Order: sequence, then C-alpha cells, then structure tokens
Amino acid sequence: MSTNSRWSTPAAEALRVEPGFSLVDIDTRSTPGYDGDKTTGTADLEAGRAPLEGLQERLFAQSVAGTATGSVLLVLQAMDTAGKGGIVRHVVGSVDPQGVELASFKKPTAEELEHDFLWRIEKRLPDAGRLGVFDRSHYEDVLIGRVRELAPAEEIERRYGAIVNFEAEAADLGIRVVKVMLHISKDEQRERLAERLERPDKHWKYNPSDVDERALWDEYMRAYQVAIDRTSTPVAPWHVIPADRKWYARLAVQQLLVDALEDIDPHWPAADYDVEVEKARLASS
Amino acid sequence: MSTNSRWSTPAAEALRVEPGFSLVDIDTRSTPGYDGDKTTGTADLEAGRAPLEGLQERLFAQSVAGTATGSVLLVLQAMDTAGKGGIVRHVVGSVDPQGVELASFKKPTAEELEHDFLWRIEKRLPDAGRLGVFDRSHYEDVLIGRVRELAPAEEIERRYGAIVNFEAEAADLGIRVVKVMLHISKDEQRERLAERLERPDKHWKYNPSDVDERALWDEYMRAYQVAIDRTSTPVAPWHVIPADRKWYARLAVQQLLVDALEDIDPHWPAADYDVEVEKARLASS
Repeated sequence: MSTNSRWSTPAAEALRVEPGFSLVDIDTRSTPGYDGDKTTGTADLEAGRAPLEGLQERLFAQSVAGTATGSVLLVLQAMDTAGKGGIVRHVVGSVDPQGVELASFKKPTAEELEHDFLWRIEKRLPDAGRLGVFDRSHYEDVLIGRVRELAPAEEIERRYGAIVNFEAEAADLGIRVVKVMLHISKDEQRERLAERLERPDKHWKYNPSDVDERALWDEYMRAYQVAIDRTSTPVAPWHVIPADRKWYARLAVQQLLVDALEDIDPHWPAADYDVEVEKARLASS
Repeated sequence: MSTNSRWSTPAAEALRVEPGFSLVDIDTRSTPGYDGDKTTGTADLEAGRAPLEGLQERLFAQSVAGTATGSVLLVLQAMDTAGKGGIVRHVVGSVDPQGVELASFKKPTAEELEHDFLWRIEKRLPDAGRLGVFDRSHYEDVLIGRVRELAPAEEIERRYGAIVNFEAEAADLGIRVVKVMLHISKDEQRERLAERLERPDKHWKYNPSDVDERALWDEYMRAYQVAIDRTSTPVAPWHVIPADRKWYARLAVQQLLVDALEDIDPHWPAADYDVEVEKARLASS
C-alpha cells in the first residue's frame, strides 16, 4: 500500500465492504481513512499520478515482453452524475493509454440480449498486463435489471451466483478485480443534474431518463445493497466510495489502483536476449 | 489553426509533403515552422494540452449526443525508437480516454493474412466523434512488406492505389486522416537503441530484430519515399516530422490534431429535450 501521511487507514481497508455493511448509513460527504481536505486531496491526487503511472508502465512492459501474469480490472458502478467519467479522465487518464483497455457498457444490443448477460462482459476482460476499466458492467443486470424488472425474478436471483463464479474465475486468471461503487446522495445528484441543465456546455450530459431513474432512488439503493451483499467476496470485494466530494473519490480510486498494482508487484522484464551481444551488433550497425 | 507566437508557419503547412519532396534531404534535427527551443517547446506542449482536450471533449460530446459527423484518425508511422509511444503517451494521453480509439497493429495474425491487407484496418476506423490513433497501420504493408518482400511485387504495387481509395472513402465518411511519419536519423536511432540496452528498465523496449531492420535503413527510406509519393493526396496528406528532438515531434503532432479538430469545429450539442420542462421535473423529484 502506497500511503502518504494523510491516509490514517489505507483506502482499500477503509472502503472495503464488511459483513453488516449498510449502504444507506454511509455519509456520502465523508472521506474514510483520509485526514485531509480538498486542498491536500487535490495535491495528493496530483502527487499520486507518478507512482500509478510507474507501476502501470512496468505492468505494460510485462505485457509487451509476454511475461505478464496479472492484470487489473476496475469496475465502476454508480448512479448518474456520481463521477465515473471524472475517474476515467482524471485517474485512469494519468497512465499510458497503450496499457489501458476501457469498456463502456451501454444498454445491451439485440445481439447481446440473445446471449447470457455475461457474454459481452467476458469478451472485454483485460489481457494480461493491462489495466481494464469497466464503465458500468455486469452489475447493471442486477441493478437496473432488478429495479426495472428487465428479467424474471429467478433469473435475477441466478445472476448473483453467476457473477461470483465469473469473478472468481477472473481472479484465477490473475485479474485483480477492483469493484467500486461511487456513492452520492440524492440531493447531490439533484445539484449535479441541475448544473447540467443550467450550462449549455453540459446539456449533452443530461438525459430525461436520468430523472426517471432518480424517481426510483430508494429501489436502486436496495438493489445496490443486495448486489453488494451477494457479490462481495475475498477475491473481488466491493468498495463503496463516498463521492459527494469528487476530489476524495478520485484520490480513493487512485489509491485502490496503486494497491492492486502493488499486489501484482510488476518488475521490469529481464532481457530475453544477450545484452552484450546486442551492444556489439548495434555498435557495428 | 491554433497558433502561438512561436509558430512562424502553421505546423500543418510546414510539415505537409509537397510535390518534389525528398525524405533523405530532411534535417531530422530541424524544427520546421517553430521558432523556439526545447524550453519554450516543452512549455508550449503543456500549454497546448487544454485546447486539445477542450476540442476533443466537444467532439466526444457530439458522439454521445449522436450528432457527430466527423472524426480524426492519427496514423503514426516511424522507424523503431522514433517516438510513437511518446506521442501516444504525452499528446494523445492528454485527452479524455473515453473519446480515444487506439489501435496498435502488430505483425498480422494467420487469420488476418487470409484477408486483404486492409481488412483488419477498416475494422478499426474511428467511429464518428472519436479520436482514432493507429500505432503503425496499413502502411506497414508497403514498408516492411516491400523491404522484406512479404508479398509479390505486383501486389505491393496494387496496394498504393488501394490505400488512396481507402483513405478517400474514409475522408468521405468525415474522417480527418492525419498521416505522420516521425523521422529520425540513423545515428539518433543508434543512440536510442543503445540507451535501451544500457538501462535495465528499458530492456523490454529492445528487440534484436530492431538491428536487423536497421541494417536495411536505406531500403526503408526508399520504401517510405515511394509510399509518401504514391499516397499523399489532398484529403490525406503526409506530414514528415523531424523527430530527433522529441519535444518538437510531440508539439507538432499536438498542433496537427488541434488543426484537424478545428477543421471539424465541433460545437456543444444542443439539448434534444426541453430544458425548462426538465428543470421543473428535476425540481420536483
């Protein structure tokens, strides 16, 4: 864990869901584990770019060298406006794009609906040595899927177990599955949606359906609670990140990624050629 | 063209290949159009991040809103060590990853070899509203393809015309094709390869085949000259960027991208809903 003095508890530990967890009792303006404010948090986020970038470059080097065994998959779930896009831009965006595999899951296509809900997900698991990011994920199928009854109740039930198995298999493949729910309050969402309506340069981020889903806030919170309860496992735990403060959410995700990469502990690949021989060849070329 | 005072000639104009162009006569340490040094160039690169990011965000907004008609495709070609990776990391890396579609073309697979050389390329053309990047491209099929005689001479000949047609069709689809050759000297390449051999943290970037290809430097330069001559068109011109100075190459590519995006001139999408109605719905939600 790469900590600085302002993390009194490592982010992974402070944010990991434990038995008895209650989503509605989380203070969405809190900053678990971090004893700093926006000023220090913004500075720490900036300072954390280099360590994250460095670790990811080593991992990417392994993927190029063909020696990578591990990868990281960041799964981002959240209500609208909670800040997924900002995480992608300001946290993931600080590493070399060559090593990133970003998958945004929208409403399933007709073809995707003909298959099991995990069919389109499995195809986007990151290759060894990569940092994968799921902007929404298979969890939509037990969130909006449950709230909007997009599948029969017994199918929704089946999915929790299917997800646990799927993520266990991913972990067996060396994928560090980092599951994150960005958690904002309903009031915070109203403010953010209002800003999108106020500003013409934000109109594209607003969709009338956002308010339709917002009307079902409590049902969504219950669906999140069930999903988190049913799919938190030692190899793929959930982290619920209070996200009313964007700086904190970004800093926390950065820490979780550093943590996952340090767990892989990627080293620069050794040369698979004779360095001295190559120096001589190069000198005479 | 977004210029600052140190560009005496816009990058696109200074670098665009014109009839009579001679690759071997280019000074790879020169900085065409730019009257500055490493210090100012580095500062200008940093200052250019925000305009590039802003333009790309508008384009991405259009893609989300479904109103995008244009896209940008940066085609990067170069001899080994010329700095393609640095362009991806330091120039492309400054924009929102959500709007970027990066394709790295390696040695073709068996399946790819069963198809026309453009088969795998066409699939990776950027969607409307995106910034596509080809790290190597269909030009490999007339560069290493020609030098290494990977296809019959008449097939190589056919490809130049096929490429011109292909890129014209892409342009018709609204794709701004920005073709860049990063051009380093053979001596500069030796220094960069030597550094990769000196530093254990760079060993992964070195491959013994780099020296094999290096031995064919002059043949490669001829193949580039032919490819550039045969495929420079008004809708998809080549830009040859002297790249011994990394800061200049990055600054120049940044300018070319800004230029292409300004040509698209993306505006924030207008709301396709009634803003006042939505404000009322939100307020009562």
